[in-house]
Amino acid sequence: MASPAAPIGVFDSGLGGLTVARAIRTLLPRESIAYFGDTARLPYGTKSPATVHRFTRQCLRFLMGVRPKLLVVACNTASALALAQLRNDFEVPVIGVLEPGAVAAVEVARQAARSGGSTPGRAQRIGLIATEATIGSNAYPAAIRALDPALQVIGRACPLLVPMIEEGREESDLIVGLVLREYLQPFLEMEISALILGCTHYPIFASAVQETLGEEVTLIDSARQTALVVRDQLATMHALSQSPHDGRLTCYVTDQGQRFERLASRFLGEAVGQPVWVTPEMLETVE
Amino acid sequence: MASPAAPIGVFDSGLGGLTVARAIRTLLPRESIAYFGDTARLPYGTKSPATVHRFTRQCLRFLMGVRPKLLVVACNTASALALAQLRNDFEVPVIGVLEPGAVAAVEVARQAARSGGSTPGRAQRIGLIATEATIGSNAYPAAIRALDPALQVIGRACPLLVPMIEEGREESDLIVGLVLREYLQPFLEMEISALILGCTHYPIFASAVQETLGEEVTLIDSARQTALVVRDQLATMHALSQSPHDGRLTCYVTDQGQRFERLASRFLGEAVGQPVWVTPEMLETVE
Repeated sequence: MASPAAPIGVFDSGLGGLTVARAIRTLLPRESIAYFGDTARLPYGTKSPATVHRFTRQCLRFLMGVRPKLLVVACNTASALALAQLRNDFEVPVIGVLEPGAVAAVEVARQAARSGGSTPGRAQRIGLIATEATIGSNAYPAAIRALDPALQVIGRACPLLVPMIEEGREESDLIVGLVLREYLQPFLEMEISALILGCTHYPIFASAVQETLGEEVTLIDSARQTALVVRDQLATMHALSQSPHDGRLTCYVTDQGQRFERLASRFLGEAVGQPVWVTPEMLETVE
Repeated sequence: MASPAAPIGVFDSGLGGLTVARAIRTLLPRESIAYFGDTARLPYGTKSPATVHRFTRQCLRFLMGVRPKLLVVACNTASALALAQLRNDFEVPVIGVLEPGAVAAVEVARQAARSGGSTPGRAQRIGLIATEATIGSNAYPAAIRALDPALQVIGRACPLLVPMIEEGREESDLIVGLVLREYLQPFLEMEISALILGCTHYPIFASAVQETLGEEVTLIDSARQTALVVRDQLATMHALSQSPHDGRLTCYVTDQGQRFERLASRFLGEAVGQPVWVTPEMLETVE
């Protein structure tokens, strides 16, 4: 049986999953988190399903070393390409970010349909922005249509958003505005009720996306939805932390250097201590 | 002694090094090339020196399996961060792309100084655009000042160029134009005689860069310079191919999938056959 004192393992290819860690810390401040970012091999969003599955499994195997009560795959690409296999690979529950986002988007679309709304068809359409690999996997449309076959999903890969965010560009930047307008154009031409921010980096640009699309479109940020699923899962397992103290956050990364610390606070919303360095070779030996 | 019939091993973190393979094939069509792209772990340009050295060494160890007469590190980041160590790691000569580019830039600056030129100081300044890691390494300024201590090098990291090129954007694209103008602004304010394209992807945007900077700036594309160094090195070793037939090009990649084939022809200037897939785990066992 899972110990309530055990940490939650959170995995991402890099830094973006810290937005999920942040949502968990806000909702469940007593939980300790072991965060793993595969910064030596990121990004996953341009890579094949086989490689994404293999890398993610190696990282989760390493995370199992802290004896977590639960694993969170806080990476949309890994959730889209490999979640089913990963659930077979491990004994503890594995929660992805894709399904919570899909559930929330379907709920928004249904509300829009109930309220009537301005444009016919808008309520039936859900937009999705994500990495090339996530779009190519078709996993979001599959998850959404499993919940409601009448819904349409329009997806668009946005390869420049992650490098723009990691470069430190702000939403007010001229180039950010132009790139967003280009990527979001299909969602203006074919109106949507909800837009899924299908990459954990994207919430950083949420205000600019909202401004481009207008108030009629509800943005779906999977981080908070995922935190709610984590809470429900832990409650079901009777494994919510009983500690009177705030939980710890320990970060593990595969690349050396200051880049993680420099960028991490933008995603976590608080300072991050020096991460623990794990070489990719060490991951291989864990297999 | 090296066999003239042996192939040349060319390494890059991904696809960009195919511009170097192309230059070698143009200059030395009789040579066979074994090209290795570490597509599962790219890009290297945001990673630490330790990780870049480790990954590159693993890939070169694998390439040694084809018994190459020469290794070319056709990756600016790896050349900047790890070339000296790599030369100790292997028995065959290892040629990087950094030094040939630095030599060519110094030659341009000297010619500009001799010819007088329009603006005082222009001849003394060399510009450099490259990845974050290459800029951070200070390797180009060190190589250039070792050749001529009177020269100044102004470097600028350009993190969006590689993803824009891999997204398939053309030079005529509005966003490409704006990003280039932003990145190249320092070289308009402080005039330069030469600009080093310090990443093997960048030649794809050479015309737009030239147009932004004007004809007084000479662009340095290391690919051709490196091919000349390869020729000289092989001649010195008496190892130039004596074959009456054109050489073969075999590609090895660490990621599965169609992305390599889809993008490779843009860099190589000819169709690329299906690459051989090597898992990163296989690289570990080579160590």
